[in-house]
Amino acid sequence: MSGMMKRWLLNGRPIGRPIQDDDFKLDEAPIPSPGPGQVLLKTLWLGFDPAQKGWMENVADYVAPMEIGEVMRGSGIGQVVESNHPKYKVGDLLCGLTGWQEYLVTDGVGYERPVADLKPTAMLSVVGTTGITAYGGLFKLGEPVAGDVVVVSGAAGATGSVAGQLAKIAGCTVIGIAGGKDKCDWLTQELGFDHAIDYKSEPVRPRLKELAPRGVNVFFDNVGGSILNDTLAQIATGARIVICGGISRYQVGRMPAGPENYFNLVFRRATMRGFIVLDWMSEFPDIRRRLAGFVNAGKLQFREDEQHGFENAPRTLLRLFDGSNKGKQILKVADPA
Amino acid sequence: MSGMMKRWLLNGRPIGRPIQDDDFKLDEAPIPSPGPGQVLLKTLWLGFDPAQKGWMENVADYVAPMEIGEVMRGSGIGQVVESNHPKYKVGDLLCGLTGWQEYLVTDGVGYERPVADLKPTAMLSVVGTTGITAYGGLFKLGEPVAGDVVVVSGAAGATGSVAGQLAKIAGCTVIGIAGGKDKCDWLTQELGFDHAIDYKSEPVRPRLKELAPRGVNVFFDNVGGSILNDTLAQIATGARIVICGGISRYQVGRMPAGPENYFNLVFRRATMRGFIVLDWMSEFPDIRRRLAGFVNAGKLQFREDEQHGFENAPRTLLRLFDGSNKGKQILKVADPA
Repeated sequence: MSGMMKRWLLNGRPIGRPIQDDDFKLDEAPIPSPGPGQVLLKTLWLGFDPAQKGWMENVADYVAPMEIGEVMRGSGIGQVVESNHPKYKVGDLLCGLTGWQEYLVTDGVGYERPVADLKPTAMLSVVGTTGITAYGGLFKLGEPVAGDVVVVSGAAGATGSVAGQLAKIAGCTVIGIAGGKDKCDWLTQELGFDHAIDYKSEPVRPRLKELAPRGVNVFFDNVGGSILNDTLAQIATGARIVICGGISRYQVGRMPAGPENYFNLVFRRATMRGFIVLDWMSEFPDIRRRLAGFVNAGKLQFREDEQHGFENAPRTLLRLFDGSNKGKQILKVADPA
Repeated sequence: MSGMMKRWLLNGRPIGRPIQDDDFKLDEAPIPSPGPGQVLLKTLWLGFDPAQKGWMENVADYVAPMEIGEVMRGSGIGQVVESNHPKYKVGDLLCGLTGWQEYLVTDGVGYERPVADLKPTAMLSVVGTTGITAYGGLFKLGEPVAGDVVVVSGAAGATGSVAGQLAKIAGCTVIGIAGGKDKCDWLTQELGFDHAIDYKSEPVRPRLKELAPRGVNVFFDNVGGSILNDTLAQIATGARIVICGGISRYQVGRMPAGPENYFNLVFRRATMRGFIVLDWMSEFPDIRRRLAGFVNAGKLQFREDEQHGFENAPRTLLRLFDGSNKGKQILKVADPA
């Protein structure tokens, strides 16, 4: 296959400021040719995650640094269009870190096939690292017990919505914190959350006190800032606070204010922990199987916000930071053959 | 025994402000008479702890609330001067929550005899809740492994100095953070700490980076505020942060600023936990035996700052908050018979 392809290169580091248009540069390059044991993938979908801002900043030292001029790193799903690899034939779909480029060559290491009975993009959301993050963070760190009160912030996000539903599956009372009536209605009316707090129109701390008078046993935090602080004020004895994300810091590029109420960890004999999902890589296949089982059993819903057009990759990423995405943010780049 | 005795009553709540002289009221009352199964104790020593401010404020809900007009709560050692109890004879020493009063009556529940081969006041410090706090916090929550770098803040305090020495016994490299050259010299020259950082004359963060270039594995925090935040910036992967105290908040009565760097818990897959030593009450005898063993083996030193005179109880407490105490703050109230 010959010809040119488009790709987005990293062109600036959004440290201490929001992402700007010129942090990315649209570039053209020849479509590469697969060598022995390699395939040529055509990118069909890209998946977006708040952590990508950290990668651009190079603050996230759990992954290799990203250099200016490199293809922007990101998850995606590609279709094999040429194959020199015995395991992959033309037409196969592969999911992995495709990056923001229309074509790429790989030997398949680090790539997975989609789960058979789900739509392919589920690999970017509910059975991808997003869903696995929710599963691992909730169960390994949060250790919810049936009857616990579990609070999830960023609850209408791709990770938060899975974490909350998993806590329901585990027999807990689940309170979601999200911004806006639409998101809150989705949580309680569609996903089965017991309660939702709209932080844009309700004060979080008194509402939590009302909804969880005996305290919060598990807090799955995607937000940080005042929501973390308010929830710390209402934790139960022995509470587990799972720090999954800090969306309140991502667009300003610095840490949100520290939680003044951290000292409640003492009075409540509580634990606050962070994690990196990649540490559990060896368990991904098993966790993925469990998540797919819950989806197929009708117990775990997910929603995707699909945008279109390769040129729109940067502005699709930005949808995560202004809260306009509804569900997992993905971008359709090309139709499957 | 008849006559009058002195006692200090709680007279104000130092919420959001330092402790003031009129938060206590010196009072006289008749010396009580022991009933059947009771003893009359004469208070010989009182022990002081920063947590007492929290008790005065009633923020510490892990203990019964303290009412205005009650005898000020606190640890002490008393000598039996009259006994109607088959287990205790006149002259016996008992340690427990005597409160700030010259005499008291008790049935002995909640009281312990001093450890035989140590001086009695060791029960107020190294083998009392102070030492047990250090032991439990360090080993149960900090989980140090030989070769770890352990940082202790408030390292010259009664709890911190024990925690640091225990970490040395456990084969760790120990860095103490304390205020002033005298305290730092004591840590490194007398107690065997590997390094000491004088936060009054050295910037903590760059010094930690220099002394622990591969990161801090365990942080035993007695201070909070900027020292907690600076140390969070330098934690190693898998670090355990033990929140033992927050002396930086006690005299202002509110939480110290929250640690902005809490999000490093994510990048470092780290854990921050709090505890209340009373939760381990059933293990006190065993822990006390171990601590006494280390003292007798010459591996664990402790120092006491003994003030004199019952009338000086309030100002002796205040020594904890201006950093003027050297070692465990105690007050000698009367000589043993």
